[in-house]
Amino acid sequence: MSHSSRLSQLHQADAFLDRHLGPDKAEQHALLDALGLANRAQLIEQTVPPAIRLRGELELPAALDEQEALARLREHAMRNQQWTSLIGTGYHGTITPPVVLRNVLENPGWYTAYTPYQPEIAQGRLEALLNFQQLTIDLTGLDLANASLLDEATAAAEAMALARRVAKNKSNRFFVDENCHPQTISVVRTRAEAFGFELVVDALDNLGAHDVFGALLQYPDTHGDIRDLRPLIEQLHTRQALACVAADLLSLLLLMSPGELGADVALGSTQRFGVPMGFGGPHAAYFATRDEFKRAMPGRIIGVSKDTRGNTALRMALQTREQHIRREKANSNICTSQVLLANIAGFYAVYHGPEGLKRIAERVYRLTSILAAALERKGIQRINQYFFDTLTLDVGGAQTAIIESAKAARINLRILGRGRLGVSLDETCTRQTVEQLLSIFLGADHGLEIDLLDASELPQGVPAELVRRSAYLTHPVFNTHHSETEMLRYLKRLENKDLALNQAMIPLGSCTMKLNATSEMIPITWPEFANLHPFVPSEQAVGYRAMIDELESWLCAITGFDAISMQPNSGAQGEYAGLLAIRKYHESRGEAQRDICLIPASAHGTNPASAQMTSMRVVTVDCDKSGNVDLDDLKRKAAQAGGQLACLMITYPSTHGVYEEGIRDICTVVHEQGGQVYMDGANLNALVGLARPADVGADVSHMNLHKTFCIPHGGGGPGMGPIGVKAHLAPFVANHPVVELEGPAPGNSAVSAAPWGSASILPISWMYIAMMGPRLRDATEVAILNANYLANRLNGAFPVLYSGRNGRVAHECIIDLRPLKAQTGISEEDVAKRLMDYGFHAPTMSFPVPGTLMIEPTESEPKAELDRFVEAMLSIRAEIAKVQNGEWTAEDNPLVNAPHTLADVTGAWTRAYSIAEAVTPSAHTREHKYWPTVNRVDNVFGDRNLFCACVSG
Amino acid sequence: MSHSSRLSQLHQADAFLDRHLGPDKAEQHALLDALGLANRAQLIEQTVPPAIRLRGELELPAALDEQEALARLREHAMRNQQWTSLIGTGYHGTITPPVVLRNVLENPGWYTAYTPYQPEIAQGRLEALLNFQQLTIDLTGLDLANASLLDEATAAAEAMALARRVAKNKSNRFFVDENCHPQTISVVRTRAEAFGFELVVDALDNLGAHDVFGALLQYPDTHGDIRDLRPLIEQLHTRQALACVAADLLSLLLLMSPGELGADVALGSTQRFGVPMGFGGPHAAYFATRDEFKRAMPGRIIGVSKDTRGNTALRMALQTREQHIRREKANSNICTSQVLLANIAGFYAVYHGPEGLKRIAERVYRLTSILAAALERKGIQRINQYFFDTLTLDVGGAQTAIIESAKAARINLRILGRGRLGVSLDETCTRQTVEQLLSIFLGADHGLEIDLLDASELPQGVPAELVRRSAYLTHPVFNTHHSETEMLRYLKRLENKDLALNQAMIPLGSCTMKLNATSEMIPITWPEFANLHPFVPSEQAVGYRAMIDELESWLCAITGFDAISMQPNSGAQGEYAGLLAIRKYHESRGEAQRDICLIPASAHGTNPASAQMTSMRVVTVDCDKSGNVDLDDLKRKAAQAGGQLACLMITYPSTHGVYEEGIRDICTVVHEQGGQVYMDGANLNALVGLARPADVGADVSHMNLHKTFCIPHGGGGPGMGPIGVKAHLAPFVANHPVVELEGPAPGNSAVSAAPWGSASILPISWMYIAMMGPRLRDATEVAILNANYLANRLNGAFPVLYSGRNGRVAHECIIDLRPLKAQTGISEEDVAKRLMDYGFHAPTMSFPVPGTLMIEPTESEPKAELDRFVEAMLSIRAEIAKVQNGEWTAEDNPLVNAPHTLADVTGAWTRAYSIAEAVTPSAHTREHKYWPTVNRVDNVFGDRNLFCACVSG
Repeated sequence: MSHSSRLSQLHQADAFLDRHLGPDKAEQHALLDALGLANRAQLIEQTVPPAIRLRGELELPAALDEQEALARLREHAMRNQQWTSLIGTGYHGTITPPVVLRNVLENPGWYTAYTPYQPEIAQGRLEALLNFQQLTIDLTGLDLANASLLDEATAAAEAMALARRVAKNKSNRFFVDENCHPQTISVVRTRAEAFGFELVVDALDNLGAHDVFGALLQYPDTHGDIRDLRPLIEQLHTRQALACVAADLLSLLLLMSPGELGADVALGSTQRFGVPMGFGGPHAAYFATRDEFKRAMPGRIIGVSKDTRGNTALRMALQTREQHIRREKANSNICTSQVLLANIAGFYAVYHGPEGLKRIAERVYRLTSILAAALERKGIQRINQYFFDTLTLDVGGAQTAIIESAKAARINLRILGRGRLGVSLDETCTRQTVEQLLSIFLGADHGLEIDLLDASELPQGVPAELVRRSAYLTHPVFNTHHSETEMLRYLKRLENKDLALNQAMIPLGSCTMKLNATSEMIPITWPEFANLHPFVPSEQAVGYRAMIDELESWLCAITGFDAISMQPNSGAQGEYAGLLAIRKYHESRGEAQRDICLIPASAHGTNPASAQMTSMRVVTVDCDKSGNVDLDDLKRKAAQAGGQLACLMITYPSTHGVYEEGIRDICTVVHEQGGQVYMDGANLNALVGLARPADVGADVSHMNLHKTFCIPHGGGGPGMGPIGVKAHLAPFVANHPVVELEGPAPGNSAVSAAPWGSASILPISWMYIAMMGPRLRDATEVAILNANYLANRLNGAFPVLYSGRNGRVAHECIIDLRPLKAQTGISEEDVAKRLMDYGFHAPTMSFPVPGTLMIEPTESEPKAELDRFVEAMLSIRAEIAKVQNGEWTAEDNPLVNAPHTLADVTGAWTRAYSIAEAVTPSAHTREHKYWPTVNRVDNVFGDRNLFCACVSG
Repeated sequence: MSHSSRLSQLHQADAFLDRHLGPDKAEQHALLDALGLANRAQLIEQTVPPAIRLRGELELPAALDEQEALARLREHAMRNQQWTSLIGTGYHGTITPPVVLRNVLENPGWYTAYTPYQPEIAQGRLEALLNFQQLTIDLTGLDLANASLLDEATAAAEAMALARRVAKNKSNRFFVDENCHPQTISVVRTRAEAFGFELVVDALDNLGAHDVFGALLQYPDTHGDIRDLRPLIEQLHTRQALACVAADLLSLLLLMSPGELGADVALGSTQRFGVPMGFGGPHAAYFATRDEFKRAMPGRIIGVSKDTRGNTALRMALQTREQHIRREKANSNICTSQVLLANIAGFYAVYHGPEGLKRIAERVYRLTSILAAALERKGIQRINQYFFDTLTLDVGGAQTAIIESAKAARINLRILGRGRLGVSLDETCTRQTVEQLLSIFLGADHGLEIDLLDASELPQGVPAELVRRSAYLTHPVFNTHHSETEMLRYLKRLENKDLALNQAMIPLGSCTMKLNATSEMIPITWPEFANLHPFVPSEQAVGYRAMIDELESWLCAITGFDAISMQPNSGAQGEYAGLLAIRKYHESRGEAQRDICLIPASAHGTNPASAQMTSMRVVTVDCDKSGNVDLDDLKRKAAQAGGQLACLMITYPSTHGVYEEGIRDICTVVHEQGGQVYMDGANLNALVGLARPADVGADVSHMNLHKTFCIPHGGGGPGMGPIGVKAHLAPFVANHPVVELEGPAPGNSAVSAAPWGSASILPISWMYIAMMGPRLRDATEVAILNANYLANRLNGAFPVLYSGRNGRVAHECIIDLRPLKAQTGISEEDVAKRLMDYGFHAPTMSFPVPGTLMIEPTESEPKAELDRFVEAMLSIRAEIAKVQNGEWTAEDNPLVNAPHTLADVTGAWTRAYSIAEAVTPSAHTREHKYWPTVNRVDNVFGDRNLFCACVSG
């Protein structure tokens, strides 16, 4: 046989690019043909303004294939050391129940889902989140909980903001217990400074000395002590100030709840409920408050409503940003939550149930008590009188020797100043752990025996008056699924209710629901990445740091920035962190007065909210009728602002899905006035490899790693929003109080709890970039190709609202449903819901323009799926035509009745159209039907009858 | 807070027993209550004959919790060494596509499914298997393929058996090419000896010298050479003998197919199509033959038929054992296939497509050619003239030095006698591998460059006349799903068609569909277990051997046997291996004449088939009307057999689901006549911890690890059927020609290809036993409890056919539908299909008694699921009553029309009952509907119109 190909032509079989792209070469040609184009180059020529085009290739290492990349990343992983970390400080060892690990965290049915904005196809994760809220409500003893926040520290900052919103005390001062976790204090400090609040960090005993609008108390505190907070809370209430309690969730199984203590807000991390420490995140924070403050609640709340058949149906009930604090009035920009992690924490509670959880807590407490008894007996002084899982010990001059001894046993203790050490036990600890600790603290010949200690009188860790007596988790959901078989089926039933990327395209404009490849996901559950405490000595995290350094250098190459801050753990956090850097930069130049932030009318709602949170004044810039920034208006307003201009926030390509031609001019206008340009990275997927934000004129930009760089949406989080900055801004990004970072100025306070944000999901983006290399550009080009193909095919039936040069769109397109609505009454919502009957998730609805749908196919959708979507849309257009021509009435047609459920089909059928027209309107649905599990959900009812806990019976 | 519990009472939160058992303590009490019992002990007292009861606890280590067990097993795993194995001999490095790894091999939706006997709820895996058959057909160039066999060696033995069944040549002689893989020769030898065939192992050139009914040829041969087999095949055909070709599947992408060469049978391993080597298995063997031999095909064939609506529907078309070779006439006992692995191989082909596969093959071939060129240039003599991926080299005295050098590079070569070494490349090999090999063979200063070699004239590996020119994999399924997004959705669509344990109870009598816990499954994909070649030097497999030793010792403790043979890789293989040992034992005592095998009438069909395969004469023993062995008849027939009695095969508890009281007497009768007792371990789940087969009187027994010991059924395989033997039989079990085992006599030939059968799934059973320890007994007791509860609740509506002492059943029960059928015409099949509408998999149908259903709930089903099943059955009974009383006609009722599909609902509805009655007959189905995807499948049509390839368009 003659050899047909050289080795160099026979690339490794598992080259990744072809797996990541939806359309293969032949399909790409078909798409180009449909657009009358010869090749992709021509499309890009027509689409992307030459002025911004990147010349040459991205300076990235050549693409690795999947196995090579996994092997390379494993090398990094193996350089991390998995010690037993008893550092505490808000992060604890935990066991993810294997059935949850495999069937939720490692299951695309859960991790590729989107935020449940479309409740009819999201009842599974909505129920899971309701469980999470119920867990929070029960353990905190408060009325109402949200569906998670980003981390404990930002949750504390949100509590402060809530306190300011609702407290009758009008002081500008907020009190923080000096015994809060250091990262919490740092993040609250950042937030307070940006808001212009005065922060008092002091001993609890001095609380009475300060007139404040609220206070943050830690329970148990960072050193493990447990204090009866009731007198302090009464003191606060007397002054019409709010009491916010940051509480360890596991301890609340044994301790009187914050609600019973009188707290107004309770918050904390749910990490130790089955979510790996992951070198700092992602984890879900919980947040609970009183019913009276529900309209001030940050983040999302899942609520119980009903559908058009009157059946119970869940939905997102409240969303601060979108519904309550319109743009310029926001003092929270929270957007993403931590759905995947909240679900895991909720499932952990479902699987263990109240008795199982209590046993875990009692075991941790018992082990700690035995350790405390032994140390007491041997005369080691404990700083904290009371304790649940943490002992802070004064070991004086023995500190160094003890640390060395712990090192030999591969145990990390918390190292405190003045001869002090902390040790925190967790559910992974065993009697062997305690035996090791006894040897570490007392030497090998301590002569104590665990069993004898266990049988002896133990010190009282939990004060008698604070023993929990109230019930929790009495709902059946926490008392049913305790065998693995039951749990597995419960998880499966919920999963089956939802539509995720593993079933169909999710064409959400601006959200970039692209492939989350398995090989990207596999490393995050490697124990070498999953099990690290964020505050381990740096030599134990060499692999993590090398991986992060590499990822940072690659992101710099992609964006053109000089430095990256990995700390912001959501896109909105990135905006906030970027604006903070801009403010500090101006301050450093003696221009603290620069506080005007220009924002185009078309911007994401988070932009003004973020500006507001940094005490900037928002000035809106007009857009012209093609959706572009009105350059004249910009010039006028920039000039008006003059020496007060802080920055412009601009999304590129625009939220209208086009490459504005004038972007360089826009940046120049701002720079000429001494302002900085913040580029919102939401649409970075349309730039990678074609243009670099920094080259175009941006000074800072966040990158949604959960969009462009393949971190899955997880059903509504985790996200990651690192920011890229030019060198002049680099000293002004966040640092960390426990782990000092290189780059930012020492002493800069933090924006997130963990030094590198949600570090454990960074391998996903690392893998993606490693496997794509300079071919990232192919992804961008195909994303643009797919979007233009869709726009082209839909345009006849639904007008495409905006387009750029040569009539092309960027990576997404907006179709206008307002004309049809005017003619027929069929709304964009009807179309969105009707798409469910066809087995699709709706595109983004009414953003950025009311009455429209914004469609983003991404590069990962193959032509067959694009066509299936187009055919569904054209079929829906034909259905609208039947309403238009009177064949169906406005009240009885498959659009207004959408989505259709099994209950519709099995009830009496009296509709003007057939069952087949209702539920199997396409060939695909006849073969592969996905069923929405509830009919259209009644939002008004849900808002009027807010109920946010598990439904009984 | 006072400490409520001592440490010892606060067991680790993740103790496994409570996760494994369905009913918790309270539920167990409710079940006992329903049976009028105070506790489990009383139930066991009433159920299990005192004569056989085990006194005391199982002698097993105390149960570990899930994390402890995983940690312990990881210690074993870490003692394995992952070298690059270029040993070949039928096992090759491969890459499991990550999307397949995670979404098939690690997904309970695939691995917990049962064999697709109920096609209406199994269309997903039936389609996957049809893909596998199409792959086999295309690459082998033959007409028809089956849905996999156990391994290449047993497939070769099956080919021999088929040849004997169909060849017109009536000789008793079978020829095997001496250049077949050694394990293949060994297994064929075992089988030939047992059948009484004469085996000729000789050089191919001597084929003409032998009059044979068939021959086995290897292509390429074990040393890598490729020979034009056409003249040899013609020679065979001239003599009316069959040509069986064992071919490497990857090589067939470049080589003329066996079919084109004229072969009658082609067979081989599909391991290198994405299935990890796993220290020997499990892997799927393929098997293809001519259309004319289809009725002689071993194993299962998936065929295309139609459903009652005339739509295409897949089903298992042929099953040798069950349909064609009734009991005493069998010469194959194959039962299990390797569905999960066959599916993976099929998906590997679907994902890569013909071009991707060809590129993989070309790359392997190119790398081999470059290596060959380099070695040639440096004067190293190659033994094989032609090659695809394997070079056999004569290195003379340099052998030792080269082996040392390879060791230093952590590369395993194949070590052959007489200064020879083999090297086989695979898809994981890169140019670096070849560079390493050059240094190993030529020393570091060889001065050759891969690129220069690549550009030079390379030796001709594939003979010009054998270059493949025919097309393959032209069906769309192999040309569509090449992006990961597409593949993920394809896998999901197939998964969603099927009902597996993650959705509902699968109450299959005798099949023990219990929990396959995640923590049991996790280790099998650890690379330390997944990536080992079975023939690595023993020091690289220390962890594997330690794990297997431990598992063997535990199985001895559980069963009372003295030794375990892990080699049989299915239950039926275990039977065969056990009977072989009995035969050899008798022979060793000069009693070769003992060839009568007594088998009760109620036995599994595999029993007589296995006996037949060892040339035993089967004598059936009657059962009495309660289903027990008729002791008098046994005595009579044993006495009649006398000195010719080889053994009795008996299942215990009986296939009728009862503990026969007389089991000890039965064994005594057999022993008194000098016979041995083979105990079929199918029902071992009802004995563990309560009684031990060896104590009761068994001399040998197989254990279905895929039943009692939690290996999942995988949709129809893999299974594992190790046998336990008493000491006197231990020398007579299988050994292995490549890896000599301790225990069996040296030189014993093999029953399976790999020394320890499907070694890589043994961690599942290891984990199960490690986590249960002596509490295994609890599982058995709860299994009995669940079964008795079901029997009790169903008995009023459906008579329970057999029961033992005190009216109790063992771990399963048979309900009799014959009376109802006589009255109403509603058959057991109607009930089975109707259960699908209720979301259940049917129980075992018409085995062991026609017209019945055999129900086994296992210990893992919680009470709620048992009740849901009972309610479904009672509701079905009420439906039958409506037919009985004329409310519904015999032709139009939901039973005969079951199962109902979406097509029923969306078509014109003209039935006598409502849509709701049809598809949502229970509360559960209204909430969580599972839809069968086809209507009842027409078996007769499928059998008459056998079509076993992918359906076009």
